[in-house]
Amino acid sequence: MTNRRSADNRTTRRRFLGDAAATLTGAALLSVAGCNEDMQRMSGRSSGSLIGAGSVVLFQGDSITDAGRNRRSEGNANDARAMGNGYALLAGAHLLAQYCAADLKVYNRGISGNKVFQLAERWDKDCLALKPDVVSILIGVNDIWHKLNGQYDGTAEIYQRDYHALLERTQRELPGVKLVICEPFVLRCGAVNDTWFPEFDSYRAAAKQVATEFGAVFVPFQAMFDEAVQSTASSYWAADGVHPTIAGASLMAQTWLDAVAKA
Amino acid sequence: MTNRRSADNRTTRRRFLGDAAATLTGAALLSVAGCNEDMQRMSGRSSGSLIGAGSVVLFQGDSITDAGRNRRSEGNANDARAMGNGYALLAGAHLLAQYCAADLKVYNRGISGNKVFQLAERWDKDCLALKPDVVSILIGVNDIWHKLNGQYDGTAEIYQRDYHALLERTQRELPGVKLVICEPFVLRCGAVNDTWFPEFDSYRAAAKQVATEFGAVFVPFQAMFDEAVQSTASSYWAADGVHPTIAGASLMAQTWLDAVAKA
Repeated sequence: MTNRRSADNRTTRRRFLGDAAATLTGAALLSVAGCNEDMQRMSGRSSGSLIGAGSVVLFQGDSITDAGRNRRSEGNANDARAMGNGYALLAGAHLLAQYCAADLKVYNRGISGNKVFQLAERWDKDCLALKPDVVSILIGVNDIWHKLNGQYDGTAEIYQRDYHALLERTQRELPGVKLVICEPFVLRCGAVNDTWFPEFDSYRAAAKQVATEFGAVFVPFQAMFDEAVQSTASSYWAADGVHPTIAGASLMAQTWLDAVAKA
Repeated sequence: MTNRRSADNRTTRRRFLGDAAATLTGAALLSVAGCNEDMQRMSGRSSGSLIGAGSVVLFQGDSITDAGRNRRSEGNANDARAMGNGYALLAGAHLLAQYCAADLKVYNRGISGNKVFQLAERWDKDCLALKPDVVSILIGVNDIWHKLNGQYDGTAEIYQRDYHALLERTQRELPGVKLVICEPFVLRCGAVNDTWFPEFDSYRAAAKQVATEFGAVFVPFQAMFDEAVQSTASSYWAADGVHPTIAGASLMAQTWLDAVAKA
């Protein structure tokens, strides 16, 4: 009994998910009938909404996105092993169940340790070649972390410049692509101490600024965690201050889904 | 940048989750503030509800539960790698985020290929030693599958007898334990053809019967998938008819959470 899973090759009705996606916000949790109802609700409608029927959705980033994914399976859309066990899996699984008639294809190509310039180095293969309709990016914590520990000489300005160039290239090569920029975040525990601040805030601001410039959806992960730690220890959400626990990943997935639904 | 995650060792208020768990049904999706509100709602209440503050929750079963979990991390509660990438991770992550103040400890000890007698063989180590408050079991598909392919000579009666003995032992060794029995399921595609029926139905009935005998929560996965395939191809939910895709796992997690919340 092996774990065989494969991408689904069905073709399906070409409808757009605009109004259905909006129901994610404050909506009931998934139900078996949910995807059917969602598809019925969409019937005959179209919109410029973020995720449409047949959409290819790509999660990109560093180890937080990577989350232990199996590289050998990365060519298969919607493959559990290829999705890792972090927020990308949790959000992707929810999308695929909620919009079961939409023939979505979800990929994860996060790679542990990446900084923004390293995304650029592998962008042809790990983004453009997939022809994604939606590109979600979470990058930045290594751009500062590797500087703080002496392995990298970047700055927030370089991060922003490289990020800007990456998004410009993405929009040029993929006309009409929808961008989702996730806010870099840290929690004050583990590897994260006072030496990160206030510099870290400038990386967050840079991500926000490029999101605005490129009309991207912005996912406010730092605000989310700042609220979460009001009542529960930082280490509960990210033991080392950087890598979310599964509780943290669950919150992230929900915040991602909410932000995308509101777009 | 490695994927370090660890169990959280906080101590927390010892409250019960009865009414909060009930809010899972038809409730809003997770929100950052959700766990705080849920804990506030519970304040001063107690109940015989399934999951309480401080609960140890164990997922047990075969490859569907296993879902590629990392055996080396299995001693760590709430560890992403140890949870695999199936319904146990999705349901566990949701519980941990929703009840962030409850100090839950979630484990996955499913092992690929297992039949019910093989659970019994490793029950001391992989169940009793963890002193779980909630034991969720999904077992049965290999009991029939391995018979159909000539690797095993069990019957539905043997399955039911062994399952009964396992639950009797569990209740004896863990007084007060709450049991969740998940219905074995198959979808008619991939490895699953007409030779499975009607025999497979007797395994489902046996699981249902032991659930009733032992006062367990019963999670109706077959009914859930039967409804799901009304509109979307079986292979979308389980490509080989046995192992759920991430879309299938997402539905399973939601149905599991709903069943537990209603208990």
